[in-house]
Parts: sequence; C-alpha cells; structure tokens
Amino acid sequence: MENIIFERGLAFARRLDAQDDLAAFREAFVFAEPDLIYLDGNSLGRLPRRTVNRVRAVVETEWGRDLIRGWNAGWYQAPTRVGEKIARLVGAGPGQVVVSDSTSVNLFKLVMAALAMRPGRDRIVSDVLNFPSDLYVLQGCARLLGDRHRLHLIPSADGITVDQGVLFDAIDEHTALITLSHVTFKSGFLYDAAAVTERAHEVGALVLWDLSHSVGAVPIALDRWGVDLAVGCTYKYLNGGPGAPAFLYVRRDLQEEALSPVWGWFGQRAPFDFELGYEPTAGVARFLVGTPPILSLLAMESALDLVLEAGVERIRRKSVRLTSYLVFLAEATLAPLGFALGSPRDPARRGSHVSVRHPQGYQINRAMIEEVKVLPDFREPDNIRLGLSPLYTSFAEVWEAMDSIRRVVEEERYRHYPAQRLPVT
Amino acid sequence: MENIIFERGLAFARRLDAQDDLAAFREAFVFAEPDLIYLDGNSLGRLPRRTVNRVRAVVETEWGRDLIRGWNAGWYQAPTRVGEKIARLVGAGPGQVVVSDSTSVNLFKLVMAALAMRPGRDRIVSDVLNFPSDLYVLQGCARLLGDRHRLHLIPSADGITVDQGVLFDAIDEHTALITLSHVTFKSGFLYDAAAVTERAHEVGALVLWDLSHSVGAVPIALDRWGVDLAVGCTYKYLNGGPGAPAFLYVRRDLQEEALSPVWGWFGQRAPFDFELGYEPTAGVARFLVGTPPILSLLAMESALDLVLEAGVERIRRKSVRLTSYLVFLAEATLAPLGFALGSPRDPARRGSHVSVRHPQGYQINRAMIEEVKVLPDFREPDNIRLGLSPLYTSFAEVWEAMDSIRRVVEEERYRHYPAQRLPVT
Repeated sequence: MENIIFERGLAFARRLDAQDDLAAFREAFVFAEPDLIYLDGNSLGRLPRRTVNRVRAVVETEWGRDLIRGWNAGWYQAPTRVGEKIARLVGAGPGQVVVSDSTSVNLFKLVMAALAMRPGRDRIVSDVLNFPSDLYVLQGCARLLGDRHRLHLIPSADGITVDQGVLFDAIDEHTALITLSHVTFKSGFLYDAAAVTERAHEVGALVLWDLSHSVGAVPIALDRWGVDLAVGCTYKYLNGGPGAPAFLYVRRDLQEEALSPVWGWFGQRAPFDFELGYEPTAGVARFLVGTPPILSLLAMESALDLVLEAGVERIRRKSVRLTSYLVFLAEATLAPLGFALGSPRDPARRGSHVSVRHPQGYQINRAMIEEVKVLPDFREPDNIRLGLSPLYTSFAEVWEAMDSIRRVVEEERYRHYPAQRLPVT
Repeated sequence: MENIIFERGLAFARRLDAQDDLAAFREAFVFAEPDLIYLDGNSLGRLPRRTVNRVRAVVETEWGRDLIRGWNAGWYQAPTRVGEKIARLVGAGPGQVVVSDSTSVNLFKLVMAALAMRPGRDRIVSDVLNFPSDLYVLQGCARLLGDRHRLHLIPSADGITVDQGVLFDAIDEHTALITLSHVTFKSGFLYDAAAVTERAHEVGALVLWDLSHSVGAVPIALDRWGVDLAVGCTYKYLNGGPGAPAFLYVRRDLQEEALSPVWGWFGQRAPFDFELGYEPTAGVARFLVGTPPILSLLAMESALDLVLEAGVERIRRKSVRLTSYLVFLAEATLAPLGFALGSPRDPARRGSHVSVRHPQGYQINRAMIEEVKVLPDFREPDNIRLGLSPLYTSFAEVWEAMDSIRRVVEEERYRHYPAQRLPVT
C-alpha cells in the first residue's frame, strides 16, 4: 500500500483527481443531477451510458424484432457467457462461474450442495457481521435439514472486525462449511480470504464466500486461493442495475459431486429433448434453474464490460486511495464533532466503503440527502455508510461530502429531521 | 361456446377480423417485421409499444437519475404491487400473489412448503404432459427429502389429453400434492382445474397449478376453485419480456402454515432492522427471497396492464374462436397432407395454442420460418406448435399461416431442410 501524506484543503483533492488514471471512466456514467454527490454505489451502482443504448437494443431489436429467435441469437448462452466475464473479475478459470437467480437463491443452492458434500459434519461457521440475509438463508437450510446443524456465529469485539484467531479456533473437524462475506456490508471489513480458506481446508471443511461487497472493487483470486464455492451480486460495484441477476462459482473439481437442490430446466443435460427425467448437465451450469431475466441480465453485461476495461488492480489502487483519504478527512474534521470510524483503519483490511458513526447518525444522514445533496446510506444503529466507487467517485467529491457532513453537524441542520428510520435506504 | 360455421376463404378471415372487438389492441404492439406471422406468443409474447417507453424511463430516470432512491419510490413495493395486478387475472383476492424469481424456483418453494404441510403422505401426483422442468423440480424435491415420496405420473393415452377418471383414481389419502400444468405446454390440453382441486380436497391433498400456459389466455378462478397453491410465468400471454420474473399464489388461510424453504431478505418481517434471526413476514410475501430484477419486473408490469385493460373474458372468447378456426382450417386443408391434430378438438378443453403433427414436422417448421415468414415453434417429436395470442393475432394471420403450411408441404419446399432439431426454439 502506498503511503501518501494527505492534506486537508480542496486543492489537494483536485491534485489527486489530476493524478487519477481512472478519471476518464467517470464520463462513461450518467450524471443526471450533476450537483449530487452519490456515495451509495456500493448499494446500487450508477447507470453506465452504454447501458442505456444496450437496453434499448435488447428491448426494441432483440425482443421487439427478433422475438423468440433472440434465444438462439445469444440469450440462451447469456448465463454462461456473462459468467465467464465475471470469472475474470474473481480470478476463476473458465467453466466455473454462471449468472443465475438472486444472491440469496444462489447461496441457498450452494449451501445445500455443500452440506450434502459433508454429511458427517454438523457445524456451519459464519459471523455476526455477515449480511443478515445470508444468515437467514443458512437458518433456512439448517431447518430444512432437520435442525441437525449448529450455526456458529463468530462475534465481533468492536463491531467492525472479526479476530482471525477467534475464527480459526472455531473451525474444526465438525465444521462442514464456513461462509462469510468477503467484505462485510456495514463496516467494510475485508477478510483474508486466502488464509481463511487455507485454515478451512486443513480440517476438511468447505468455504463459501459472498463476494457481493468485494467484486469489482477488491482483487479476488478464487482459483489461487483454492476457494470451494462463492456467490455475489452484480448491482453494487459492477453497476449492473437494480436487482440485476447474481452469480455463483463452483470450483471445477467439485462440480461433479456438487448437486443443486433446485433441479431446473437450464441445468438439465439436454433441455430441448424434453425428457421427463432430470439429468444434471456437466459443469457449473447444473446450478442454473429457470429462464433468466434477459433485460436485467444484458443490462448488467454491458455495465460489466466497463469494469473489465478498467481492470480490478487499478480499481483497487484508487479505492484504497479514496477510502484512505476519506478516513484522513474524517479523523481530521469529523472526529472533533463526535464521529467515530466504523470501518477498519488498515486499508489492507478494508473494502471500498467506509462507515462513520455518530449518535445522531440517522438524522445527519437525512440532512445530508435533503440539505446538501450528498447521498450516502444509513445502517443501524448509527452508521453513515459512504461508498466510494472508483470508476466514478472523485477525490473532490469525497472532500465535498466530508465538508458537507461537517457543515451539517456544525450548523445543527440535522436536528429537525426525525430520528426514525426510513423503510428502505 | 359459440358455434360458428367457418368458411375456407381468406374473405371469411377478414370478416372475423372485422367483428373482433379486441382488434384495436394489435396497435398496442410493435410489429418490426410487418410481413412476419408470429405464432409463438405462447412462448415469448410480442413487445408492447408502451413497454419501450416504460423501460426507457426505468433505466434513464429511475435508475439513472433517482439511483438508490428508486427503491423507496416504487421498486421495493413492486413484487407485491405487480402481484396484485396478476391476482386480478387469476381470480385471487388481495394478499395472495407476489412476483418472485423464476417459475421453477417458485415451484420449488411451494412444493417444499406443501410437502411439509402433509408430513404423513408420501405421494406426489402429476402427469406425463406436464412441462418437464416442473417434473425436474419435483424430482429434486423428492431427492432432497430423502426419496421418501413417490412421484406418480398419470399417463396420456393419446399424447394429447389426460383422462380425468384415471387421474381421480390415482388421488387418494396417500397423496400429499397434485401438481399439474393448467394448460399443457405441448398439446394445449386444458384441465378442469375446479374439478381436480375438488377431488384433491376430498382426500385432504393439496393442489398446485402451474398457470404458465393459461394466465392471460384462459379464465382462472383460484379463490373460487379453492386452489391451494399456484405458480406461473409472465412472458407468454402476459407479454412480460424474455425471462420476466414469475409469480406465485398461496391461498390466504394457508399462509401462516406455509413456509418457504429459502429464507430471504424480502420475506423477512423487518428487513431493514438487520436482525440476525429470520422471522417470516405475514402473508404471501414470506415467499419472496432476494432483490428482484427491476428492469425485467417493471417491463412486465407495463405489459400486464394491457391484458387487464382487455379483460380475460374477452381474450378467452377470441382465443376460442381463433383456435377453433385454426382447427377447422387444419382439418380442411392440412389433414389431406398427412397432418394430425395434436391438441384437443373440444375448445372447452383447449388453451390458446394448437399443435399440428406431421412426420416431417421439424423440416416443415424450419421451412415455415425460412420460406414463408411464419414463426411457430417445434416440440418433439413431430409437433408444430401454433400459439394464438388474442391481443395481436388476427384471423387473417391464421388463414395465411395455414395456407403457408399447405403450400410448403404441397410444393415440398421443406425437403432440403435438415431433419434435426435446433438447439433452442
């Protein structure tokens, strides 16, 4: 990691922007409200310009003109074709990634497959920082299998990180599966996935990583790390659009043994033979189920290409610089106003979003949106989550955002906002 | 059913079009190739004009401008809002239908829920005419539950229909679940869903209908029939677009007991509390799982409104007239050329597509596409499947299509096409 001496003024932010070798990518995105500072690209990435045209072509030409022939002209191959593009972002060789369903449905399929591959083991290890939805899926799987598995959630002493030693101690020969978010959704804690995977394999357990908050922002090397299984979403740093379909990874040498619990048409050996008995196709495609949502899938594909062009290594370099700069400004200007850092200070253990915590965090978050046109999001109980998306977030925006928070708090412009949560942010 | 004396000439088709009270709806669809006769709306419905603008607004305004705020502005409510629209097409009162996932994933969720609600029973009844994908899901569920259930597939004597007496005899107090396609995918056989449901309930079994080939074409009265569970797709007669998300129905009084095997964020009581323990929300929404594909979902919503405006009763009246006219022409002009009807003759037992069978069916199907710009689809072993979508299929098109088949066969223009199947049609 580089070691920059940051300075507090806006001029310094502009110097960082001038040095930014990804700056040109900002032009590839739609900025419908030019004065809006959008810091929620880790929840829903911005719209790439090219996606506007791509969706129009999919609707008007591929659906409107080609009609059913669209399936032969590329739709049918889309789950594997787009899967191979994602494979390049997660360090996977060919034939191991497909696009399918939602992250939760994919997690369900892979957890069920994993537990079936470790029949004698009755423990699932995760942590309290994992996305609750992932924990719900695990609970549902355990229930479905007769509550024979114990779900062990590793605690977090600081609410920000998980101690690797504590995690390692919890992994033993009773463990069937360790499943964690590579980057945690609230604090942005980044696991040492290689080390955790290695530890799991020492005792014969399987590892499943949820890459939703890391893919497109953090280098991932699934093959090199020896990861068994992974899932992830595509609407965060991949900018795939709201609810764009998710992906899953099954390591090649597990693909024969791993079986989806949901036996679908797209995972059948020869779907157009219309045979009455299911026979799974070879390879990871057996985890496909039904007909994929083509508009959402092809919109996502066009967005994905941008990330591939930029390259994850360059993205990560800028991401570390962005988050480090934000942490510097937060400590210099916000800490005196009662803010605490809700994310790891060490950039090596941090994804591309940073949480800052404040007792009036909910109100401040609202005031940022309404008063100063900065759009972060809020995560209970007191986290203002600031997502920095290297393809379009500028250093000047980080400076503006942090200065806006400072003004909102110093001027007490948050006090007239309700202290209760919005239904969805 | 009306009893029209059909005539063979094109002039008669034009008279039927002149009487068509749905004729104006044809203008609501895109006809990019005006000379193409599209008879595959039962596989992928045509693009409604309004959907072009709706998708553009979703992409450019709701995603591009509103960004994450789109969730509060309507996306988050879309699965239930659109579900309520579909409810009106399937005869369901409020609070029983949601849009979610694919048909297969929904079938999986509801089959698993159903079998859990009938723990002492070990038999699942379906038929050999059901979509193979549905049978795959059933086989996967049985395997997941330890192969304790026997899947009983009712045979079909003629490959076109299932004898209701044979079906009824197979349903007894060992039966946990009867699940069938309301309209079968190949022959278009339409079940008497009310009678089957009643018979199932006499012995305490649950019934799950797959409405994929009937919704939007055939009147459905889930509440009145007392149906327990249903699923269906939205890209056929609802014209929702390729792979548009599917729907599911759970009867109100089963909703407390029925539990999804996939415990997802969108089915959680209070997803934005981010609590670590899953608690299913009240009502059918507990069967929601992950983030829905918004582009595909909202495209589908705009298409759906057209079907609601037309009304299923009017659609069905025209559908019966269209298919009856096609059967008349097939028997008058194609039977002498070696064709046999692959669908029920009785319109009361027929959906909105008709199959005609011929030993060279595959070649003839290819020749229709390439030589005379008629687009049906082909289903093994010898079915040319002709889908008639009342909102945009005209009687003149039916006449042209049947006349084209006649010419292609009489002139032997199919003989130089390969006798092997395309990978996808």
